[in-house]
Amino acid sequence: MDYDLLITDATILPLANDGLERIDRGYLAIKGERIAALGPMRELPAAGKALITIDGSDSIVMPGLINTHCHAAMTLFRGLADDLPLMEWLNNHIFPAEARFVNAEMVYWCTRLAAAEMLRSGTTCVADGYFHEDAAASAFCETGIRAVAAQGVVDFPAPGVPDPAGNIAAVEQFLDTWQGREPLLTPAIFCHAPYTCSPETLQRGKELARQRGVPFFIHLAETEFEVQESLKKHGVTPTRHLYRLGVLDPNTVAVHCVWLNADDQRLLAETGTRVASCPGSNMKLAAGIAPLAELRRNGVVIGLGTDGCASNNNLDLFEEMDLAGKLQKVKHLDPTLLPARAVLGMATVGGAEALGLGEQIGSLVPGKKADCILLDRKQANLLPLYGAELLTSAATGGDVRTVIVNGRVVMRDRRMMLFDETETMAHVRELAKKVTAPT
Amino acid sequence: MDYDLLITDATILPLANDGLERIDRGYLAIKGERIAALGPMRELPAAGKALITIDGSDSIVMPGLINTHCHAAMTLFRGLADDLPLMEWLNNHIFPAEARFVNAEMVYWCTRLAAAEMLRSGTTCVADGYFHEDAAASAFCETGIRAVAAQGVVDFPAPGVPDPAGNIAAVEQFLDTWQGREPLLTPAIFCHAPYTCSPETLQRGKELARQRGVPFFIHLAETEFEVQESLKKHGVTPTRHLYRLGVLDPNTVAVHCVWLNADDQRLLAETGTRVASCPGSNMKLAAGIAPLAELRRNGVVIGLGTDGCASNNNLDLFEEMDLAGKLQKVKHLDPTLLPARAVLGMATVGGAEALGLGEQIGSLVPGKKADCILLDRKQANLLPLYGAELLTSAATGGDVRTVIVNGRVVMRDRRMMLFDETETMAHVRELAKKVTAPT
Repeated sequence: MDYDLLITDATILPLANDGLERIDRGYLAIKGERIAALGPMRELPAAGKALITIDGSDSIVMPGLINTHCHAAMTLFRGLADDLPLMEWLNNHIFPAEARFVNAEMVYWCTRLAAAEMLRSGTTCVADGYFHEDAAASAFCETGIRAVAAQGVVDFPAPGVPDPAGNIAAVEQFLDTWQGREPLLTPAIFCHAPYTCSPETLQRGKELARQRGVPFFIHLAETEFEVQESLKKHGVTPTRHLYRLGVLDPNTVAVHCVWLNADDQRLLAETGTRVASCPGSNMKLAAGIAPLAELRRNGVVIGLGTDGCASNNNLDLFEEMDLAGKLQKVKHLDPTLLPARAVLGMATVGGAEALGLGEQIGSLVPGKKADCILLDRKQANLLPLYGAELLTSAATGGDVRTVIVNGRVVMRDRRMMLFDETETMAHVRELAKKVTAPT
Repeated sequence: MDYDLLITDATILPLANDGLERIDRGYLAIKGERIAALGPMRELPAAGKALITIDGSDSIVMPGLINTHCHAAMTLFRGLADDLPLMEWLNNHIFPAEARFVNAEMVYWCTRLAAAEMLRSGTTCVADGYFHEDAAASAFCETGIRAVAAQGVVDFPAPGVPDPAGNIAAVEQFLDTWQGREPLLTPAIFCHAPYTCSPETLQRGKELARQRGVPFFIHLAETEFEVQESLKKHGVTPTRHLYRLGVLDPNTVAVHCVWLNADDQRLLAETGTRVASCPGSNMKLAAGIAPLAELRRNGVVIGLGTDGCASNNNLDLFEEMDLAGKLQKVKHLDPTLLPARAVLGMATVGGAEALGLGEQIGSLVPGKKADCILLDRKQANLLPLYGAELLTSAATGGDVRTVIVNGRVVMRDRRMMLFDETETMAHVRELAKKVTAPT
């Protein structure tokens, strides 16, 4: 056999070279975990045979989407407390619920549910950050999704890390367990925020990330309040605070980045810091609108994220693409901002670069890992297909029929291939009953 | 038989009385075209029998969504010209495409496609406005969707109305044909905008609507440019211009209403004018953010709309609900604005009132017409279900499995019951080939 997997007669969007070129009647061939070849059907070698052939004549094939920010286990808190002031939401609902219900079992099952939801909506790689991240990593591996799993760090007692003095040690242990263990799993560190981690914790965390060669994540400049508090406490913005601490570099992913002044934007650009933008979360929690158009002009690498389910309330990156583009247009009253190719780029190659996986995934190019999704062209909302624009604004996660990660079919015709989704849902339903039970 | 249709063991959201109360294990009984009864299963009469019984144990049942603004036939132009400046988009792409390709055949097939997309995403009633509206009305009737179909009026040559002197006469003819003809079809008039219709045309159009007792639609205050031009030409805002002409009353639906000053808002409230808000379109075309929170405080009845596919690019009202709520929150940096119950209200009872159908549809109440949808509770993104909040922010149109309009099942397990969707798509594909063919 020449190939392990061959998709034929499909409309293919490689999303290589920043363009939206498409192959109208094309093939994509996979060997092992990598893309072997792709092109028009007429160029498929006559002898090209495969173990598995998928008829793609009703499909659009594109790179799997990359979710650069998620707290997967928070599916348990989806819609638990909506439409509330931020501090009331956090202090009276989310933090207490986390204190009571977050444990290894909860993280395991609720992360599995999140992985199911993400695969169903076309996400093939997710960057997660939470506590009990061992359980999250196990769950991700079992579902077949690619993941960067980051153990959380805060300077107060957290689920699984009752004594904050041991928070960096907990990450070291997590990295010891997971580095080099599973091909689809990259362990990492997530220092929660400049306002929940001391300067020393931030520097120790970043130093550990550098030693181990793993990504470093941090929430940054999400709200105006955070900036004001930083100015009071440190005399500088949160971004400059991190810059002074030496935390900003191309292996740091700064999440949110809503409140950035011109100096902050320059610092992010100069240091090569990556940005994970979560427009849905920023809208729901009324944090603000991130300056994506400006950051792009500054050459900052940007990925898109869903954030956790408590602040969104779903994990559909197609929706985030739609929001990201439309939000910049309406903010600046300029419909040309963040065109479809930019938005598609953020959700694919941009996300891959943000996570340090730019050489591996993010576009359909021979030699890259085979992470791709097949959308159903027969959906009424995907007709006509004049161009790829409608993938950012007309498609939804529900249009995804088949998902391939690392050369393996993990969802086929909307059926999970590697794990029991029904069992997962049953477990989450049981956990949810406890959440609503009277205390 | 007591009932024609009985849904059992379902989670039911009646959306009556402005609340989000739900019946956790409930039944909904339909007799003829109306809701006969609903309540907890334990209150279902023991002898309650039905011709058709649907097991709703995996379903959330809620009122069908009401799309208060659409140009259905524009599915043909979906994604044709995105990310362009408004005037370039309109003058160099949309208007020329309409001049070349809009005819009765196009309107018929592309409206059928739109109806399929809307039914699939849970819309059971749509207010449409276009040209060749006879063909649109026929298409709507065949698909089983409820529709308010409005013939378009502009003071320049339009598809099917080459001489604008005959534009009001064309509406009269349209009303003659359709008034009282089909139970699900309400004919109406759509005067395009204050800047495309003369004062005389607007007054003649509104007078005709009053005589015939049909709704009157008009685009209003969509862009800042429109307001400035009105101030130059008429010395007043477009809203006050319409007020002076006597066009504003509870049977007028003003579409968009993005640029309203305090005086404009007061005029809409005082006259009882209804507002159809299209957040997705206003974002894509960078028109701006409508003052929905303020209009609500003024007591204005608001419905949601998708606008046509060229300016959105889909017809999914679940997405519009999500956008409407999140956009007000992020605009005002206040997460409590437009809570889920308000957004759900706009897409159901609000839409019904806006279209003059408040007594007939919009909530699940005995005696109202049976327009309802069943969502699949087994979708990963709909778990857990703590409250109805997640229907506005976690659900997508793809979660809708079964759709009932006027007591009739028009989609069952995502299969259209009354018309051939494949044939419709084939026709639209052929029409789309002409659009992209070299001239």
